[in-house]
Amino acid sequence: MPTFADLRQQVCEANHDLHRHGLVHAHSGNASGIDREAGVVLIKPSGVDIQTLRPEALVATALDGRRLAAREVPDGIASPLRPSVDLRHHLELYAADPSLGGIVHTHSIHATAWALVERPIPCAMTSMADEFGGDIPCAPYVDNADDHIARAIMAHRTRAPAILLGRHGVFAFDRTPALALKAALLTEVAAHTVMLAMGLGTPARFSDAEIEKWWQRYHAGYGQQPPA
Amino acid sequence: MPTFADLRQQVCEANHDLHRHGLVHAHSGNASGIDREAGVVLIKPSGVDIQTLRPEALVATALDGRRLAAREVPDGIASPLRPSVDLRHHLELYAADPSLGGIVHTHSIHATAWALVERPIPCAMTSMADEFGGDIPCAPYVDNADDHIARAIMAHRTRAPAILLGRHGVFAFDRTPALALKAALLTEVAAHTVMLAMGLGTPARFSDAEIEKWWQRYHAGYGQQPPA
Amino acid sequence: MPTFADLRQQVCEANHDLHRHGLVHAHSGNASGIDREAGVVLIKPSGVDIQTLRPEALVATALDGRRLAAREVPDGIASPLRPSVDLRHHLELYAADPSLGGIVHTHSIHATAWALVERPIPCAMTSMADEFGGDIPCAPYVDNADDHIARAIMAHRTRAPAILLGRHGVFAFDRTPALALKAALLTEVAAHTVMLAMGLGTPARFSDAEIEKWWQRYHAGYGQQPPA
Amino acid sequence: MPTFADLRQQVCEANHDLHRHGLVHAHSGNASGIDREAGVVLIKPSGVDIQTLRPEALVATALDGRRLAAREVPDGIASPLRPSVDLRHHLELYAADPSLGGIVHTHSIHATAWALVERPIPCAMTSMADEFGGDIPCAPYVDNADDHIARAIMAHRTRAPAILLGRHGVFAFDRTPALALKAALLTEVAAHTVMLAMGLGTPARFSDAEIEKWWQRYHAGYGQQPPA
Repeated sequence: MPTFADLRQQVCEANHDLHRHGLVHAHSGNASGIDREAGVVLIKPSGVDIQTLRPEALVATALDGRRLAAREVPDGIASPLRPSVDLRHHLELYAADPSLGGIVHTHSIHATAWALVERPIPCAMTSMADEFGGDIPCAPYVDNADDHIARAIMAHRTRAPAILLGRHGVFAFDRTPALALKAALLTEVAAHTVMLAMGLGTPARFSDAEIEKWWQRYHAGYGQQPPA
Repeated sequence: MPTFADLRQQVCEANHDLHRHGLVHAHSGNASGIDREAGVVLIKPSGVDIQTLRPEALVATALDGRRLAAREVPDGIASPLRPSVDLRHHLELYAADPSLGGIVHTHSIHATAWALVERPIPCAMTSMADEFGGDIPCAPYVDNADDHIARAIMAHRTRAPAILLGRHGVFAFDRTPALALKAALLTEVAAHTVMLAMGLGTPARFSDAEIEKWWQRYHAGYGQQPPA
Repeated sequence: MPTFADLRQQVCEANHDLHRHGLVHAHSGNASGIDREAGVVLIKPSGVDIQTLRPEALVATALDGRRLAAREVPDGIASPLRPSVDLRHHLELYAADPSLGGIVHTHSIHATAWALVERPIPCAMTSMADEFGGDIPCAPYVDNADDHIARAIMAHRTRAPAILLGRHGVFAFDRTPALALKAALLTEVAAHTVMLAMGLGTPARFSDAEIEKWWQRYHAGYGQQPPA
Repeated sequence: MPTFADLRQQVCEANHDLHRHGLVHAHSGNASGIDREAGVVLIKPSGVDIQTLRPEALVATALDGRRLAAREVPDGIASPLRPSVDLRHHLELYAADPSLGGIVHTHSIHATAWALVERPIPCAMTSMADEFGGDIPCAPYVDNADDHIARAIMAHRTRAPAILLGRHGVFAFDRTPALALKAALLTEVAAHTVMLAMGLGTPARFSDAEIEKWWQRYHAGYGQQPPA
């Protein structure tokens, strides 16, 4: 069970990794994490340089979006900065799905290209079957008023830990900020690889049965920990 | 209100960032800034390695292009180097639009590809609506004699902080060198993303009304400072 | 003759180089090496960050997949980590071809695009003739149960030190881990270059006689050591 | 007038820059320089890691290819390593054109793609007019026996400081190793940019008169030194 200090570190690292892997340009992406027990969300501040972000600059809010005072945050740190303008979408996703522990939003180039034409990325390679257990879906375009974005995501997501947002970009989400970051990275890789394959021929989507083989193996046997 | 020393630092960093973000190759780009009160423009010297450029190497000129002596520069530093051959275009843009505080010129690869066929980049993604408030326009080709380049830019620019120059490259401009650099970077990202989307289908341009929603929100609520 | 400590170092470096050359994303690749005399294989642990992998974290197994105790490993180091889920494929390739000393598995983007449409990469450039002595073949898709992957590779490989796996990725193999890594890198470069050339025209495959000239020269005269 | 020690440093840096700019992969490129007065050529050794190459590892030969003893080299350094297998092509180019001071050979990806279909890169952008004064030509394929490569280059080169070699790669050459490196880099940038523009429309080649305007200005007024 990670501590709140661990969470703060992981959210900061997920933001750095967005930059390090080339998934954001200028300030155009963000990562957050939640401590469910404490009811505290940590998110990137708005419009700051992501590669030099420090853990204590992360903004702490309650699930209803209320900014928290230092005494309400488990490690006693309250950043004076304004949160990402995308905070509301993160909060609504956390509220809608209690299994989520981390969320990442990007406009990574190849994935966003698919989003611009509102096409899902077909599950045409074994590494997509492993990670996404099927296609990476695409929610139709919505504006960013009210709860439009979170509602579109919840209505169109699958078991995959990522979704394209029509004419917009990518949201990825998983049990931890690090896993959400990984899903965002592999979304970009899948978007790039399948796009290139379409220039060489017609990559075939796997049958659902074939996908299941890879998904099950990957989720049962991979990595150093027993599956959650 | 930044000091002249701040400006010098920012112009130097904008030049470094051109290199760091892959927007220039060899010596093919430059950034400048202006101190309106002092009437001094700082610009990259011609043909030097941009990644090792030092602040004191920036060339100081008046708005009419006259090289300034050390005693005429607020921080008393006069570089012995020759200014960028593109100095004249920068000066004419500063003279034509008093709101400009920084200018960046690149031949970044994806944006220049659009320029080679003299096509504007259609506003087909939300991050373009945010940053550019519409298409990124393209001025028709002109040679670089006299004031041809600055005149073409002024005749064809929109509210977007960047423009393509037909068969040539990119100029970006904004209130500060850092914002001009950001506009040049997001021009390259937009050029790349929309181009890839055209290989997957037909990305739709947003209606002007839809663009306005994003532009207004972005310019009202984003970042850590109140809008200028 | 390299020592076991050298081998451990080389396997670790081959894993680092996978990351450094952009051939893996997240945890999606692995490199191994074998000490034939000691009968010990060293392979990357499952699901760990490849860029921070340390030599002592490599997992040592026998050719039959049995985990080795510290006293059975020539340098006395036994990692507590679980081996890559791809271990079995590596072991079967080492067993099937005694000349192999190193194996690398990637899902590098351009090479995998060819694999998604199950096309070999035609030998259309002199550097492919040098390194691969012909096309880079593509084995048809198989799932990863039992010995399917190693059998598909052995059935479809040529004298080239790399092969595409249909709808999956790349395996490269050579006398040492460093040479296998080089083959994986040059597979990605060939995949990228030939793909781009197909957008510009029809790159011609070399005749076998022309390929032979380059292959023979490269294998006779290149580098600092006499050919093995 | 640079000293021999300067030349050694520059040749080493040109080799490093090949790696730093992504123009070579594994060991697939090389740079050389010549001291005309001393009659000594310095070239990269064969098959070594280019990013860790040290100046004293460069191999010194006479123009006829004879390896020089330490006492025959102005700085008294004789590397024990074997020279690049491409040495002969470099030597023949230096012999054929006394104005050359540095030569660079690459298989950079985008430029090589044009070479695979044996197409010149049309002069469709102002930065190509500046640097190349016209198209980047492409010599038809030849094998690497005898003097075939150097003869093909000499027969098909123009005033541009670079040429594509059919189905092979790029040679760039200029007064110094640093300028040859710059020409190789800008060849790759031009190859990439024009290729992308062809996906968006039909980039127009400049008229010779228009090219001349840019070429003359660039060669008269650019940089910190008077033109040579």
